[in-house]
Amino acid sequence: MHTLQTCQELDAADTLAPLRQQFSLPEGVIYLDGNSLGVLPTAASARVAEVVSQEWGQGLIRSWNSAGWFELPRRLGDKIARLIGARPGEVVATDSTSINLYKVLSAALNIAAEDAPARKRIVSERSNFPTDLYIAEGLCRERGYTLQLVEPEDIAAALTADVAVLMLTHVNYRTGAMHDMAAVTRAAHAAGILTVWDLAHSAGAVPVDLNGARADFSIGCGYKYLNGGPGAPAFVWVNPRHADRFWQPLSGWWGHANPFAFTPDYQPAPGIGRYLCGTQPIINLAVLECGLDTVLAAEPLGGMTALRTKSLALTDLFIALVEQRCGGYGLGLATPREHAARGSQVCLTRDEGAFAIVQALIARGVIGDFRAGDGGLGRHKDILRFGLTPLYIGFEDVWHAVEHLRQVLESGEWQKPEFNQKHAVT
Amino acid sequence: MHTLQTCQELDAADTLAPLRQQFSLPEGVIYLDGNSLGVLPTAASARVAEVVSQEWGQGLIRSWNSAGWFELPRRLGDKIARLIGARPGEVVATDSTSINLYKVLSAALNIAAEDAPARKRIVSERSNFPTDLYIAEGLCRERGYTLQLVEPEDIAAALTADVAVLMLTHVNYRTGAMHDMAAVTRAAHAAGILTVWDLAHSAGAVPVDLNGARADFSIGCGYKYLNGGPGAPAFVWVNPRHADRFWQPLSGWWGHANPFAFTPDYQPAPGIGRYLCGTQPIINLAVLECGLDTVLAAEPLGGMTALRTKSLALTDLFIALVEQRCGGYGLGLATPREHAARGSQVCLTRDEGAFAIVQALIARGVIGDFRAGDGGLGRHKDILRFGLTPLYIGFEDVWHAVEHLRQVLESGEWQKPEFNQKHAVT
Repeated sequence: MHTLQTCQELDAADTLAPLRQQFSLPEGVIYLDGNSLGVLPTAASARVAEVVSQEWGQGLIRSWNSAGWFELPRRLGDKIARLIGARPGEVVATDSTSINLYKVLSAALNIAAEDAPARKRIVSERSNFPTDLYIAEGLCRERGYTLQLVEPEDIAAALTADVAVLMLTHVNYRTGAMHDMAAVTRAAHAAGILTVWDLAHSAGAVPVDLNGARADFSIGCGYKYLNGGPGAPAFVWVNPRHADRFWQPLSGWWGHANPFAFTPDYQPAPGIGRYLCGTQPIINLAVLECGLDTVLAAEPLGGMTALRTKSLALTDLFIALVEQRCGGYGLGLATPREHAARGSQVCLTRDEGAFAIVQALIARGVIGDFRAGDGGLGRHKDILRFGLTPLYIGFEDVWHAVEHLRQVLESGEWQKPEFNQKHAVT
Repeated sequence: MHTLQTCQELDAADTLAPLRQQFSLPEGVIYLDGNSLGVLPTAASARVAEVVSQEWGQGLIRSWNSAGWFELPRRLGDKIARLIGARPGEVVATDSTSINLYKVLSAALNIAAEDAPARKRIVSERSNFPTDLYIAEGLCRERGYTLQLVEPEDIAAALTADVAVLMLTHVNYRTGAMHDMAAVTRAAHAAGILTVWDLAHSAGAVPVDLNGARADFSIGCGYKYLNGGPGAPAFVWVNPRHADRFWQPLSGWWGHANPFAFTPDYQPAPGIGRYLCGTQPIINLAVLECGLDTVLAAEPLGGMTALRTKSLALTDLFIALVEQRCGGYGLGLATPREHAARGSQVCLTRDEGAFAIVQALIARGVIGDFRAGDGGLGRHKDILRFGLTPLYIGFEDVWHAVEHLRQVLESGEWQKPEFNQKHAVT
């Protein structure tokens, strides 16, 4: 039986609690949406002022060298590598998740076209993040492939001899369900299929071991659990056994073997360098580094393993409190109970009112978000989504969040008209 | 005969001179590299602090709507449109120049493949900016096209019946030579060829009229004459007669007709909206808007026409002073003397020492840059490049810059070892 007091005791015993001091959080807010946009590292304000006023304003063009701008995608890539089981030099921070997916999926299709030209299918999950499906759909149209969308339980059966690539998001954005990356990759490889993993809801949230899983390609997002700021550059990793094999199609100057020679013909850089393309948004990259540093600050305290332990304790607590205190209000659980199958979020379902309940919670300062059931196709129920980021969320926060949820349901305040007006949400 | 005094008189009579007060420039620097990286708008420091501390830090995920983040690519696009002869709703600010070129060149090839499938060639200039050639080279490999590179004087003869697309940079990055966009586009269209114009060295530097020229596709850079900060997002324009015809291949969520519906299938937004892809770097976009505002501030003073008049006066003065005061030092002129064929920069050549002379000038606070002769292939001479940005450069600046050049040449100080050590330059 959890009480406010037992939650406070968990916070008092939490060795990761001091990490919260790295962030500037609004007063009166319990922020359970770090899986959509991470919070502001306090260091970012001073850093961005330095980049703008000093590096740009005073250093001007000289800062490409003197301030290390040109090295940022690789320097940040090396920091991200420490969080996802990659080695130094294997990752770059660049462009958006969608664009990086286009690069790696193109490269994967090029490899498949050479090694197994009869394989003309990409398999993914129907509830994968839509932009991943859109990018795959575009490439399929362009190259004569078919995109086959299946439910998670049907993935194994879909790994047939005509499949070139299995493209999955490691932790599902809607449900928080997590794939066993090593096992799924083994199954794909046994069937002669390459794997592309989207780590948008994994990097900085759960331990990832890309090399250990022998994954083929991976991309991820900088502005969710990595706290890199709105629209922060994404990242891309390619297994070294594939990295030198093909150009990716976005062959811009920053991916050139000798970018300052200004030769008219393209020669790709060795390794992950060729996955760079054009000039990068330096200010956002500098801010992303502040975000990465907030996660790496956990390394002396046990790193991703310790963060994962706390994350599971937070999500366990959230589920237990909802069941203990919000019974009888029609809530269901979309997130798996099994630890190995769960990311760092808890998703609840409700037959009606999910959108309005989320709005009522936001009005009380408890920020989660709403996700419609399967793109409005009605295959799944609407979802109330709560991301629990162990870097800055504590156990007492969970208590209060669930208590607000209970009050919103008990009072029926979610039925007020102002909470039922849908507008654009992200 | 120009003197310091006549230059000062020109400054005193310059109605655009107050525009310089919009910028924070380092003390003791004459910055003639705004064609590579524009200078810092003073307003950007406060704006970036607001975006980081308030919109991100306090507003968090809510700022996608409440702070208008989602509208930034279109809102900034409308501002850029005013500078390039486009209409509201025809331009978006997004991604990098290289990536936007990939989008429009792909779309142009799609149109050509449908309308004129026998045309299998892209024509460009050998001294086009390298990344443009790299992107075209990648697309040619992917789709079975040939990239034909010609000298500027051979473009007209190259517009033959097997050419699908003519891809040019309006103002050449090395020489400052400017094409007649309307005439070249007419010649291309008469031969059944689509045009792609890179405005990297034009937008904010010279008047551009994309619709007047009936151009087909265009892209450009945010961090040169638009003062958007290092790696600022680029922009893309598509003639409305083409915009709805094809997907561009980077079909991400932000280009979806209904991006918040989260449907698994892609439906492109109408018009230029479909040229958006993934989530954009919001902080850099906000800073780019400050840069755009510095150029638009010229509108009540005569806008791009007035800026162009001053730009030509500045480049004329620079050329005249070099000839008047630096004769006998082996300098040549790579930039056309004819106004209609010149952008906003002056490029000098020298058989030897161009790199070291630029370094010696930088050491004196006169920042221009060096460009090797045609990618080191020896086809052209090395270049000393000086961008003259009328928003913040005055006539007296030009006097002092040329006087420093004269002293560097006369004293032979450019021959010092420290000015001859080549390292990575951008």
